Amino acid sequence: MIVVMRVGTPEAELERVCEELSTTFGVSPERIVGKHKTVIGLVGDTAELDNMQLKEFSPWVEQVLRVEQPFKKASLEYRNGEYSEVWVNTPDGKVAIGKHHPISVVAGPCSVENEEMIIATAKRVKAAGAKFLRGGAYKPRTSPYAFQGHGESALDLLAAAREATGLGIITEVMDAADLDKIVEVADVVQVGARNMQNFSLLKKVGAQEKPVLLKRGMAATIEDWLMAAEYILAAGNPNVILCERGIRTFDRQYARNTLDLACIPVLRQLTHLPIMIDPSHGTGKWEYVPAMALAAIAAGTDSLMIEVHPAPAKALSDGPQSLNPEKFDRLMGELGVIGRAVGRWEIPQPAAALV
Amino acid sequence: MIVVMRVGTPEAELERVCEELSTTFGVSPERIVGKHKTVIGLVGDTAELDNMQLKEFSPWVEQVLRVEQPFKKASLEYRNGEYSEVWVNTPDGKVAIGKHHPISVVAGPCSVENEEMIIATAKRVKAAGAKFLRGGAYKPRTSPYAFQGHGESALDLLAAAREATGLGIITEVMDAADLDKIVEVADVVQVGARNMQNFSLLKKVGAQEKPVLLKRGMAATIEDWLMAAEYILAAGNPNVILCERGIRTFDRQYARNTLDLACIPVLRQLTHLPIMIDPSHGTGKWEYVPAMALAAIAAGTDSLMIEVHPAPAKALSDGPQSLNPEKFDRLMGELGVIGRAVGRWEIPQPAAALV
Amino acid sequence: MIVVMRVGTPEAELERVCEELSTTFGVSPERIVGKHKTVIGLVGDTAELDNMQLKEFSPWVEQVLRVEQPFKKASLEYRNGEYSEVWVNTPDGKVAIGKHHPISVVAGPCSVENEEMIIATAKRVKAAGAKFLRGGAYKPRTSPYAFQGHGESALDLLAAAREATGLGIITEVMDAADLDKIVEVADVVQVGARNMQNFSLLKKVGAQEKPVLLKRGMAATIEDWLMAAEYILAAGNPNVILCERGIRTFDRQYARNTLDLACIPVLRQLTHLPIMIDPSHGTGKWEYVPAMALAAIAAGTDSLMIEVHPAPAKALSDGPQSLNPEKFDRLMGELGVIGRAVGRWEIPQPAAALV
Amino acid sequence: MIVVMRVGTPEAELERVCEELSTTFGVSPERIVGKHKTVIGLVGDTAELDNMQLKEFSPWVEQVLRVEQPFKKASLEYRNGEYSEVWVNTPDGKVAIGKHHPISVVAGPCSVENEEMIIATAKRVKAAGAKFLRGGAYKPRTSPYAFQGHGESALDLLAAAREATGLGIITEVMDAADLDKIVEVADVVQVGARNMQNFSLLKKVGAQEKPVLLKRGMAATIEDWLMAAEYILAAGNPNVILCERGIRTFDRQYARNTLDLACIPVLRQLTHLPIMIDPSHGTGKWEYVPAMALAAIAAGTDSLMIEVHPAPAKALSDGPQSLNPEKFDRLMGELGVIGRAVGRWEIPQPAAALV
Repeated sequence: MIVVMRVGTPEAELERVCEELSTTFGVSPERIVGKHKTVIGLVGDTAELDNMQLKEFSPWVEQVLRVEQPFKKASLEYRNGEYSEVWVNTPDGKVAIGKHHPISVVAGPCSVENEEMIIATAKRVKAAGAKFLRGGAYKPRTSPYAFQGHGESALDLLAAAREATGLGIITEVMDAADLDKIVEVADVVQVGARNMQNFSLLKKVGAQEKPVLLKRGMAATIEDWLMAAEYILAAGNPNVILCERGIRTFDRQYARNTLDLACIPVLRQLTHLPIMIDPSHGTGKWEYVPAMALAAIAAGTDSLMIEVHPAPAKALSDGPQSLNPEKFDRLMGELGVIGRAVGRWEIPQPAAALV
Repeated sequence: MIVVMRVGTPEAELERVCEELSTTFGVSPERIVGKHKTVIGLVGDTAELDNMQLKEFSPWVEQVLRVEQPFKKASLEYRNGEYSEVWVNTPDGKVAIGKHHPISVVAGPCSVENEEMIIATAKRVKAAGAKFLRGGAYKPRTSPYAFQGHGESALDLLAAAREATGLGIITEVMDAADLDKIVEVADVVQVGARNMQNFSLLKKVGAQEKPVLLKRGMAATIEDWLMAAEYILAAGNPNVILCERGIRTFDRQYARNTLDLACIPVLRQLTHLPIMIDPSHGTGKWEYVPAMALAAIAAGTDSLMIEVHPAPAKALSDGPQSLNPEKFDRLMGELGVIGRAVGRWEIPQPAAALV
Repeated sequence: MIVVMRVGTPEAELERVCEELSTTFGVSPERIVGKHKTVIGLVGDTAELDNMQLKEFSPWVEQVLRVEQPFKKASLEYRNGEYSEVWVNTPDGKVAIGKHHPISVVAGPCSVENEEMIIATAKRVKAAGAKFLRGGAYKPRTSPYAFQGHGESALDLLAAAREATGLGIITEVMDAADLDKIVEVADVVQVGARNMQNFSLLKKVGAQEKPVLLKRGMAATIEDWLMAAEYILAAGNPNVILCERGIRTFDRQYARNTLDLACIPVLRQLTHLPIMIDPSHGTGKWEYVPAMALAAIAAGTDSLMIEVHPAPAKALSDGPQSLNPEKFDRLMGELGVIGRAVGRWEIPQPAAALV
Repeated sequence: MIVVMRVGTPEAELERVCEELSTTFGVSPERIVGKHKTVIGLVGDTAELDNMQLKEFSPWVEQVLRVEQPFKKASLEYRNGEYSEVWVNTPDGKVAIGKHHPISVVAGPCSVENEEMIIATAKRVKAAGAKFLRGGAYKPRTSPYAFQGHGESALDLLAAAREATGLGIITEVMDAADLDKIVEVADVVQVGARNMQNFSLLKKVGAQEKPVLLKRGMAATIEDWLMAAEYILAAGNPNVILCERGIRTFDRQYARNTLDLACIPVLRQLTHLPIMIDPSHGTGKWEYVPAMALAAIAAGTDSLMIEVHPAPAKALSDGPQSLNPEKFDRLMGELGVIGRAVGRWEIPQPAAALV
């Protein structure tokens, strides 16, 4: 339920209304400051609340609306139609991800293999225009006998790469027990596709302060995905980025997953949360990545996640879907053409790759 | 199997080789004239053919290669890596659809409802830059009680619209018995998704001369789809356009189908045939059409099929996925931005809509 | 819409009501004689019809109900909750397929290969208790270069097998142009999964008199399937059997399709039409056929279709999913155990296989 | 890799071989005692091991075989074709679940709501023949605002129900932090479908001693599922039961999921692990549960999990898929008919329901 306040409502009145809503009805009011108006969001047991009664709460109340979607805080209605943005602190400064900002590119290897590779990769992707480095310390692998990531020691290497380049760090949490260590290094914590409905983990990443990248589960409907985001929002963390990475369908012969780019316009109608597209997992083959990255920009994504490995053929995981740095440089050039055409590219024409 | 001939092979030698291949081995040689070289494609019982034996056929033979894919004539290998184009005769002249040509736009209503609507729509979409008018005379409807199309009389209206505007006509054949009447009017014959594996129909459209638009079946893998194209090619018609229109997946709550845009880079690796994307059926809602049409261009499609209806709310079929003419005009403007960025747009900035 | 007539309504009154409904409202009344009551089914433009008005038509009208499902004649409501049965004329006499009859088994090869094999197979499956012989004359094959069936000459062989054994014949129609020839031989005409939404073909099999076996399309929802049945019923043929043969899902590694056995209780709630299960196509491997055939009986199927080939390893099509005659004999023994437990098995303990 | 030892190998020699394999190659040998022979399973870095070398290890070595499947300990090959069984300690004694044992039935509500309901339900399902009580203390719910289970206090109620009835308890772990508390009460720990690839959790349930019920993920292939089981086995817990509960497909209109019963014969070829079928989640509607439970027995399942709630209409979760106790009694009677027909039912004709 949202209470839309008139333009110019005095601060004291806003405070009074929130206070009173809280004490009278036992709901938790949340102030959402938009460009023009302030909205008070109410989540909790609102079934008993009556629109008329709320309207009489204050002459400054303009409108009272019920959020019809099952996801409340994640819905676009909850913010009265205003898209949110996620600001991430990186050593190079704050970076915003959202509909009204330039497209951010996240790049890096599937897993952190050693210091040299992660720092070299970080420098290369930064030179090409990436704002964030991705790299797995803890890896969800189908087989217990496959490389499981270097764990804690990989976190140190990510910290070193962060310091060396100024890039923000995005890495995955698989076990809530590792969360404290991860948030010391990560600027954005990733919840992987296989844990999208690990509700215990969602509650825990919702209870810490770093922004969360929530990957869509392989068989998750868009509604399931937004409900998973709602778990994080409901736990108190408003900074969630939704990342599409391919869904599972009947055709897995050439592309490993089916990248559902139509989620972009669908999400834009449903939610205020920013969107990221991962064409590397979304297709599973580096040859298909450029076309899908370009398409994602044209379709309106706010950010991209692209796997880059210095030597894909030797990668400990996901080699076939990784670009090498030269191909990534070239791709960034191509992305700029579309990114500029849609007015969402701030990266200068990439210089020749420097290490 | 393909026989690659050296640059400069004399015409007489080409003829001799084809003749001899045919008489000696009982296969049907097909000459494929590329930019530099000519390739002789062989389909039929080639299991017995021996590469060495074929190489000794003529000193002009450069290479003999076996097509490993189950689809032969449809494979990119069969044309030695050269993409094909489909030339369509329209009243306004020949239009090419293919990787090395500007993007063609097909627009129009789901079904032909009456003369006024089809001619008015045709004029509007032409003014906005479309080259082809789509419109159903025979409609595949889930329910036998739903509007089944006006049939033969609708063909007359399409002919009138063709004459009035110069647009090429694309319309669907559902029953081989109607094929003769349809090809009198249609410049491109469409085989719908539900008939993609109606092999009898594929053989019959393969035995006539008009280009064929082959829509992907809802549960067809890319290989199934190329095998369906192979039926048409094998029957003698080389002019096939592949049209992706959304596949069926577990999530049908917002978008009716899942538009598989990754088919574009996948098809580019596998086949020489030109590609069309239909974001209207592919998503099932007009609100999602612009983002997906833009994405399709960025991903490299050769053509687009977009449903346009003068009054979608009153449409006899598929209203929710149709744009009205004003929205289509606006979309064409947006498509031009991306189309020009990728160098495949020849439509001038659309003038104000004229009726 | 259905008009339920009271028990004991005189024949003359039934006639009068039907006549009047037809002349007054332009709908086509259909009399459905149940165990106790007669129901008059109305399909057509019934939107304008008013329940009260119809009730006043005759004092013998007990109730007027609207069929809420999009499929009308196929719905269980349309027959007032009474399941239908399909009677098939075979040389050995009439065989009923339906909920209140013993389970019928259809067996035979994917395609008719030659006279010896089809007659030998027919004799074996008859000895084991099958009532029908399946065998393809026209085969839908993914590749145009694969064996396409022997066509018309195979029909003659089926006729010979029919005469030699007394079994009913079930064979597929792929092209309406072949329908006349097929119905001369076939006791049941099959529409294959790939043609389930070939609406032209559905109308044509609906306009002839032989019962129709309608296979479920690979991506057809249960509603799509019942709507396809509705096309046949609406065209005038009330004898439709629904055959589940596996749907397409993300897991195709071991079983080729996913056999949706839950369609049995779902269909029982929705439709009066009889049900057949095809575990051979449904799984794609003979090793999985027995377990699924047993399960189908326990779940309540009315009939089974099982592929049997004298030498599966040498089959021209679908070898991997065919049982050899010895395995089929053994399976029939096992099926009898479950079939008798549920009281729907009339085949005596199979004798030792005789050729 | 497995080393098959000859019949009659002396104990001392078995010990010597295991010892030496361990010290020489650094692998962890596991002794699997079959009916006739003992097999030594080796998992770890076996790539370097040479069959001949291993054969020369002892004259008692009969054969050395490489496990070709990606899942090793879970494979049927690893146990040389011998199916395993899981023995569960319940207050009423040890119960075995496996191919060579009578079918076990697990029944109970989705979530534990209060003491009265859980104890009453437990008594009813026990009277009807169930061996295990299911009931959720921690509930994975799509919405953060839905009932999340009573948590720890519900565990106490399960303990009370266990004591009151002698039934074994099966309950789900969603968070590794709750595992210690859960295993104090549970006789079998359940990992839910949404956590099937929560690899951290799999490792932790693999490191404790209670048997684990591993539900199949909604988009998990059979191979994914067996790899998830392998995580548990590799962590040291050999007692894993595989539970199919429906996969996600394009058709969700009537049944909520598609119950993949063909997994039964597929799993029998691939793995030695016992199988459970959950038709309640697998279909999502109580009306479809009986047919699917019957089918599961006919197809060869080792156990069934069925939701039973004293008043489904008032259930805090999953009401629509729960049977009431009367319907469950009736179903157990029907299951007995099929269960006895296949020789796997030891429950006497259920007495009239007693509370």
